[in-house]
Amino acid sequence: MSNTILVNGTIITMDAKQQVFKKGAIAFENEKITYVGEVPSDLSIYDEVVDVKGDYILPGLVNTHGHASMSLLRGYADDLPLQQWLEEKMWPIEATYTKDHAKWGTYLSIIEMLRTGTTTFVDMYDNMDEVAMAVDASGARARLCRGMIGFGSEELRQSKLEEASNFARNWNNQANGRITTMMSPHSPYTCTPQFIEQIVSKAVELNSPIHIHMSETRSEVELNVSEYGERPVKHLEKLGMFEQPTLVAHAVHLEEWELDILAKYDVKVSNNIISNLKLASGIAPVPAMLEKGITVSLGTDSSASNNNLDLFGELNQVALLYKGVHNDATLIPAEKALQMATIHGAEAIWLEDQVGSLEVGKEADLIVLNTKQAFYQPAHNPISHIVYSGSGRDVKDVFVQGKQVVKNGECLTVDEEKVIFEVNRLSEKF
Amino acid sequence: MSNTILVNGTIITMDAKQQVFKKGAIAFENEKITYVGEVPSDLSIYDEVVDVKGDYILPGLVNTHGHASMSLLRGYADDLPLQQWLEEKMWPIEATYTKDHAKWGTYLSIIEMLRTGTTTFVDMYDNMDEVAMAVDASGARARLCRGMIGFGSEELRQSKLEEASNFARNWNNQANGRITTMMSPHSPYTCTPQFIEQIVSKAVELNSPIHIHMSETRSEVELNVSEYGERPVKHLEKLGMFEQPTLVAHAVHLEEWELDILAKYDVKVSNNIISNLKLASGIAPVPAMLEKGITVSLGTDSSASNNNLDLFGELNQVALLYKGVHNDATLIPAEKALQMATIHGAEAIWLEDQVGSLEVGKEADLIVLNTKQAFYQPAHNPISHIVYSGSGRDVKDVFVQGKQVVKNGECLTVDEEKVIFEVNRLSEKF
Repeated sequence: MSNTILVNGTIITMDAKQQVFKKGAIAFENEKITYVGEVPSDLSIYDEVVDVKGDYILPGLVNTHGHASMSLLRGYADDLPLQQWLEEKMWPIEATYTKDHAKWGTYLSIIEMLRTGTTTFVDMYDNMDEVAMAVDASGARARLCRGMIGFGSEELRQSKLEEASNFARNWNNQANGRITTMMSPHSPYTCTPQFIEQIVSKAVELNSPIHIHMSETRSEVELNVSEYGERPVKHLEKLGMFEQPTLVAHAVHLEEWELDILAKYDVKVSNNIISNLKLASGIAPVPAMLEKGITVSLGTDSSASNNNLDLFGELNQVALLYKGVHNDATLIPAEKALQMATIHGAEAIWLEDQVGSLEVGKEADLIVLNTKQAFYQPAHNPISHIVYSGSGRDVKDVFVQGKQVVKNGECLTVDEEKVIFEVNRLSEKF
Repeated sequence: MSNTILVNGTIITMDAKQQVFKKGAIAFENEKITYVGEVPSDLSIYDEVVDVKGDYILPGLVNTHGHASMSLLRGYADDLPLQQWLEEKMWPIEATYTKDHAKWGTYLSIIEMLRTGTTTFVDMYDNMDEVAMAVDASGARARLCRGMIGFGSEELRQSKLEEASNFARNWNNQANGRITTMMSPHSPYTCTPQFIEQIVSKAVELNSPIHIHMSETRSEVELNVSEYGERPVKHLEKLGMFEQPTLVAHAVHLEEWELDILAKYDVKVSNNIISNLKLASGIAPVPAMLEKGITVSLGTDSSASNNNLDLFGELNQVALLYKGVHNDATLIPAEKALQMATIHGAEAIWLEDQVGSLEVGKEADLIVLNTKQAFYQPAHNPISHIVYSGSGRDVKDVFVQGKQVVKNGECLTVDEEKVIFEVNRLSEKF
C-alpha cells in the first residue's frame, strides 16, 4: 500500500487536546497514521498527494450496538411498543431467517454504515460467520458476538454457548485485526442466571469482553425485580459479569445508585437514543452518566427499530434531546456529542489504542465530509456544523486501515446494486 | 412550458385518500398538475416523458417558520439558552446587518431548502424586499412578512408598521403567485398591546393573515402574566388577533384551556421541534394539539438555532420524540408526520388549494427522492422509509410550479458556489 497524504483539509483529530487543524494534512502508510498537523512544506516523500480542498477529515465513527442482519426488516413494523414489536413481529419473522438473510442483510447494513462514515461497528446476532465474512470482504472494522437467547432446552442453550465460544475464539483478531469478538448473553430477561454465569465463565476463559442488552424498558426492569428480587444492574453485578469488561446496550431505566455500580466497574454504555425513542422505551440518563465518568458511546440498534444506520442521526439527537428534556441548553455540547460518536465509541469497545481519533500510530480509519455545500456555511465552526447541520449523506470518502472503501459516496468494496436486488428478493417473502 | 410526465415512480400523493401509487405517474402542464395515478397506456400526448425508475415522488415540503437571512449566523453561538443567545449573541450582531447580509443569507437558506425538498417556506424578518427578490429569482414559493419588534421610539414603530404594510401589499401574489404575504408582530414580549392592536387593524385592512412567535419559553409566558395579567394566548385573543387568520410559531408552553382557544379560532401552529430542543425552550404538546384538531405544521426556525433547514430533520424528530417522552410508540405515526410536513404545512399558511398534496389542478410543486440507495431497502414501506430513514440529502429533483429548480441535487436557479463565497466574505467580519 502506498504512502498517502491528504492536504488542505480541516482535520478534526478528536485527540485528548481536541486539536483542529484548519488548513491541515493527514498522512498514512500501510494501515497506520504517520502524520497529523499543518500541511508540511515537503510533500515529495509521499507517493500520493490528495488535495481535499477544505473538506473536513475526521475519525471514522464507531457504532457500538446493532444487529446488521435485521436490515431486511426495515419498515416492516413501525409505531409499536418494544415487547409487542419484538414478540409479535420480529421474533416470528426472525425464526424464518437463514444464512442467506444474514449475509445480505449484513451487506445492506455495512453499505449504509460505510457510506455514512461508520468504519467500526458492534454486532450481536446469530449466523455470525456470515456477518464476519461480510465484514472481512467489505473492509469494515467490527467487534462481533453471537447473541444468546436462553429460551428452549438445555441442549439448545449449550449448543448456542459452544457456537458463541467458537465464534469468539476463531474470529478474534481476524481480517487483518479488523475483527474482534465478545461473548454475549442477549439480556437478563432472556437468559437464566445460571446461563449467564456459564457465559461469564466462558468469557473469562477466552479473555473476551461481554456485551448485553440491559434495562431497555421499564417492564423489563420490573420483571427482573419480580423474578430475581433485584434490578438488572445489581443482578448482573451479583452474577460476576462486571468483573469482566462489559458493554451494556440501552441502559435506559437506571437509578442513581445503579450508575455508581456501572462507574465502579467501568462498565461501558452504548446509548441507543433513536431506537429508544421510536420504541417508546424511554430516555437514558446520559448527562448523569457523563457526570459519573461513565464511558457513553452511541449505537443505532438495528434498522428494524431506528430505522437507519446513519450515526450522524444519533450524534445530532444526543446533542439536542437532553437540552430540551432538561431545560438546559448547555447540556452535551457539540464537542461532547462528537466524542461519543468517535473516541468514546472506541473506548467503549476497548479499541481506543487503535481507532477513534486521528493520531500518529493509530490505524488510518478516517472519513472525508464534502463541506462545499450550503449546510456547512459560513465555514467558521466545523464541529458545530458536523453535529447540528451535517448528515452521513455528506460523507464522500472513507478509509479503513488506510484502504479506501468509499469514494465519492460510492462503496468500492460491496456492489450496492446487487445487494439491493438480493434484499428485495429475500424480503418479498415476508 | 412543456407537457411533462414522470413515470414509474412511487407517487405519494398526501391527498385526503392517502393514495400511494407504487408504479405511478404524475403529469403537469405549465404550472398545474394534470394527472396523478397509474402509468397511462398512452404517453404520446406528452412532450416529455421521464422515467424515474422507482424513485419516490411526493409534494414539496412546507417549512412554516424561519428567518432565512440568519443563515449567516449558523454555528455562531451554540449551546446557550434562548434569552442569552438572543440578547447577547443574535441581536447585537443582527444590528450590524445590511441588505447585503439579508440577500446572501437568504440565498444560502433557499439553496439549502430547495436542495432538501422544501418548495414553500415562511419567512419573518426585516429587509424583506431582499428576501422577496431572492424568492422570485430562485423559483421558490414563500409566504413572507416583515417581523416587527416594537422596541424604541413611537416614530420607529410607525415606520416599521408602514414598511411592513407596504411589503404585505406590494408583494402579495407576486412572482407568478408564488409569493404571498402576512403581517407580523414579532411576539407579545417585544410588542406592546397597543402596537399589536395597530398591526391587527392593518392586517384586517389588508385582508392579510398574521404570523407571530408565541409561548416559546417558560420565562416569556411568566413575563406576559406579570406584565399583562394573562398568558400569551388569552392576551392575544383579547387583542382581537385570532379573529384574523393567524399562524403562531413555537407554541411550546400551553395549558389545555389555551389549546381550546387555539382550536376555537382555528389558529395554525408551526411546531419548531429542533430549535425548541436546541435552545432548551421545551417540548410543545403536539399530540394534545392534534387531538384538539389544531392544524400543526413543521418549521425549522433559523439555521442560527437549528442549525439547518433540512425539514426531513423535523419530520423525523416529530415522529420520534413524542413516542419516547410519552412512553407511547403509537404516537404520531409516520403518515401523520409526513402530513405535517406537507398538507398540514399548506393548510397552516392557507395555501392548501394550491400545494401540499399531489392532486389534479394543484400547482406542480413536487420532489423526487433517489431511493436506489440502501436507506430505502427493502422497498416495501415508502412512507416509513421517508420519515425514519430518509434525508433531505436524498432529494434529487425539485419542481415548483412545474419548473425544475433542482436537478440531480444541484440547484439550477442559484449559483451555490457564488453564494458560499459571498456568505463567507460577509461572515468573516463577525
